[in-house]
Amino acid sequence: MPKESLPGIAAFASHSAVQVVIGATEEGLRAVLFGDERALRLYRRFPVLKFDQRPYEGIGTLDSLGEEGYVLVPNGSVVEYVGAENVVRTRIPVFGSRRLLAIESSQESKMRLLREAMIPVPKEYGSPEEVEGPVIVKFPGARGGRGYFVASSPEEVRRGLETACASGVLRPGERPIIQQYVVGTTLYAHFFHSPVHRRTELTGFDVRYESDADGLRRAPMGVVERVSPTFTVVGNFPVFPRERLLETFAELGERFVEAVVRVTGQPFAGPFCLESVVDRDLNVHVFEFSGRIVAGTNVYLKHGSPYLALYFGEPMTVGRRIALELRVSAETGSLIEVLT
Amino acid sequence: MPKESLPGIAAFASHSAVQVVIGATEEGLRAVLFGDERALRLYRRFPVLKFDQRPYEGIGTLDSLGEEGYVLVPNGSVVEYVGAENVVRTRIPVFGSRRLLAIESSQESKMRLLREAMIPVPKEYGSPEEVEGPVIVKFPGARGGRGYFVASSPEEVRRGLETACASGVLRPGERPIIQQYVVGTTLYAHFFHSPVHRRTELTGFDVRYESDADGLRRAPMGVVERVSPTFTVVGNFPVFPRERLLETFAELGERFVEAVVRVTGQPFAGPFCLESVVDRDLNVHVFEFSGRIVAGTNVYLKHGSPYLALYFGEPMTVGRRIALELRVSAETGSLIEVLT
Amino acid sequence: MPKESLPGIAAFASHSAVQVVIGATEEGLRAVLFGDERALRLYRRFPVLKFDQRPYEGIGTLDSLGEEGYVLVPNGSVVEYVGAENVVRTRIPVFGSRRLLAIESSQESKMRLLREAMIPVPKEYGSPEEVEGPVIVKFPGARGGRGYFVASSPEEVRRGLETACASGVLRPGERPIIQQYVVGTTLYAHFFHSPVHRRTELTGFDVRYESDADGLRRAPMGVVERVSPTFTVVGNFPVFPRERLLETFAELGERFVEAVVRVTGQPFAGPFCLESVVDRDLNVHVFEFSGRIVAGTNVYLKHGSPYLALYFGEPMTVGRRIALELRVSAETGSLIEVLT
Repeated sequence: MPKESLPGIAAFASHSAVQVVIGATEEGLRAVLFGDERALRLYRRFPVLKFDQRPYEGIGTLDSLGEEGYVLVPNGSVVEYVGAENVVRTRIPVFGSRRLLAIESSQESKMRLLREAMIPVPKEYGSPEEVEGPVIVKFPGARGGRGYFVASSPEEVRRGLETACASGVLRPGERPIIQQYVVGTTLYAHFFHSPVHRRTELTGFDVRYESDADGLRRAPMGVVERVSPTFTVVGNFPVFPRERLLETFAELGERFVEAVVRVTGQPFAGPFCLESVVDRDLNVHVFEFSGRIVAGTNVYLKHGSPYLALYFGEPMTVGRRIALELRVSAETGSLIEVLT
Repeated sequence: MPKESLPGIAAFASHSAVQVVIGATEEGLRAVLFGDERALRLYRRFPVLKFDQRPYEGIGTLDSLGEEGYVLVPNGSVVEYVGAENVVRTRIPVFGSRRLLAIESSQESKMRLLREAMIPVPKEYGSPEEVEGPVIVKFPGARGGRGYFVASSPEEVRRGLETACASGVLRPGERPIIQQYVVGTTLYAHFFHSPVHRRTELTGFDVRYESDADGLRRAPMGVVERVSPTFTVVGNFPVFPRERLLETFAELGERFVEAVVRVTGQPFAGPFCLESVVDRDLNVHVFEFSGRIVAGTNVYLKHGSPYLALYFGEPMTVGRRIALELRVSAETGSLIEVLT
Repeated sequence: MPKESLPGIAAFASHSAVQVVIGATEEGLRAVLFGDERALRLYRRFPVLKFDQRPYEGIGTLDSLGEEGYVLVPNGSVVEYVGAENVVRTRIPVFGSRRLLAIESSQESKMRLLREAMIPVPKEYGSPEEVEGPVIVKFPGARGGRGYFVASSPEEVRRGLETACASGVLRPGERPIIQQYVVGTTLYAHFFHSPVHRRTELTGFDVRYESDADGLRRAPMGVVERVSPTFTVVGNFPVFPRERLLETFAELGERFVEAVVRVTGQPFAGPFCLESVVDRDLNVHVFEFSGRIVAGTNVYLKHGSPYLALYFGEPMTVGRRIALELRVSAETGSLIEVLT
């Protein structure tokens, strides 16, 4: 199929756009980045990246790109800056599930989906008063963990929420999520569901590097006692889980995909992430999910994920994995399986 | 030498089996995985892995594989599930040192070997009463650190041991090891001793990611104060030590191999690990060893270890390194140097 | 240009010498390592490394190497063992900026340069008495963080300084730097300024693994409360920052290069590092810089940095990047742009 008749890939200029652009080029697809001028400047620094660029001027930009034959690869930044509700109603075709992005944007429907999938989740509290034991308090939308805080009592939760309102992190009408703080270590498991291959692939793992939670651990006790940790994501570390955990994650990923198909009533394709805590008995608790590519996949930038090599014989980034699925679907006339 | 007359590689389906299977294939050797049905399912998910499979039905499974021309590559899971004493008396040839696995399975003989090798080790206490300063309490066998705890006084040690007995982590007749807790950072150094090349190679480094020790560091103070950390291994991080530490580790590895040969009275070959704490003055204290491949080598999955590239010109996994040594030994008629 | 007429690369046998030697070979340049016998032994262990070797017998060794057509690639160890003042006055040509090494060796001129570059830096205190809030106390020269300590009050600072004097970490006549302790997570950003390409490249990122600061975080509370953390570098972890931070770092790197050229009145070329803390609002605070290759670039050993792949299409170590710039400068008659 000639390159012109294949769909191109459009991505918001941030988050994981480098690997998405390189992946598109590697699979012979066009790529376009949209965003504000400062964000686009970064990508122009890298002579290897081949992409077209557009200023982001509201949802009309996305509609136009759709008319030019592009498909949107949604990332955390497009969800944050354009807004999930806008992404859901734009006319550009979306790689993956548009309805899943809508579900993801509401903490309530998000946790409900995980429970539907029979995936173990932490307990949730409806109000500060019900809190027993340590909790983590989160806010709607993908904002890189900004403003999240940990508390151990109803009073601490109330105080934290007041600060969040005052600083604008919690916007009027938004509902925070008050979740049991599971003691264990965090592990972010990346997946890719492929209609082409009829399988859910494990694509990798990361651990987030968060400010100032990961800095405070090294701070003097005098500082630790005065500051409540925040969870703004600064970056990601590659991590390699014990091999016996891989089967557990593979099964959780499959259950997730089945539930998404059942709940949305649509086919599902593409990358997603189950954000988990592994406790001292190696039980996996999923406290959140992302129904799209996560920035944690950047740990495989250029070199590619060794986990994807287990399916394809060679390491591959998730950016390339997306372009590969899109190209093959286009070539075999089954785009309907991967676009919504 | 035709593939059929070369030994095949048998591994327990867990721990580091992915790299061992890929490595065997890369060197033209057959591979077989044995284990329970759920464990084997994982490996069937990966189309790239070429291996035969067997249900594990007791030590007879190992004996049969030996008769079929396979060699056992022992990993932490085979030691844990099959039992070191069974691995030692199975009739299948073992790559590496069978006697070293027996030594490793007893905390007493393990630490004695390190002292024989003149490797600096932490102080050990014979009973809770003798404890001065912080200690870490460990249990026999390779169980991924499960149940290990830290304590600062005789009372805390006694209390922890009671919990360990009640929960079955410490089995009747087993003796815990009460070791000085050296303040510093952990560093796991991987080695490969090669009779073919007559040298001990540095193959890499990792840091373990442990639940909930590595999660608690980020938990709110209220939680930290109530929970005593555990050290169940969840995964491993790649780490790159300062170059000046490499010579120190290289020398410790050589001393270890000399002591193994002297103590076991057998040749020694294959992977091992020195588990260390590096203190603020860059002194290395070895608190444990593994006389076989460690899961920490999974940090080089597929891409291969850059340290092995310093010997061979290209990165290589430890899984492949094992298969390479086995193949060359078979081709040169010196299997007796690498099998016991 | 024939290999003999190209400059060779000389490096102190430690720190980042492995990648520097491999990089030289990959670009067709000769390499020589100098140092003491024990340090050189490490490099002889690796058959892949092609280099000549010299015992280090004082600054005359460097002068001779210069006469033999070598260029010095300064690393942290040469600054520490040979002394910045000696490196500055040696007759061997230096790749990068000799004057920048002099600036780097004084905490005062170092921080002044960062302020000149309009790079955000932590507050500094002239004496223990002025201290408000947490501070980190540092000592002159590149000693891998040895002896650095954190304190929260004038008394704690005074006590720490007394210990540092008594133990010889703070030498007579040296002035410690008392810096505001910015709460956040550390991030070490690596750069390469290329006169050949007229650009400042982002070459990667690491997080340091420090003893015992990173061990204490997992220690029992009884230990944490009694020990004040130290920051001796034991190794480095690869980390992948959020993509939106890359533009911020790229701009800081450019401002740094402009200030170096302005302040030193010389051209500038080669690797440098901005050592930063990223706070919870994603503001970047630079608390130190290195005007030469840092050991954190070892996280890309052999496999190469994926960030450099964004400029060259393939991953590359900083060791190779140096050799490439040197070779092309020699071939195009513009060595004057990269040597001082």
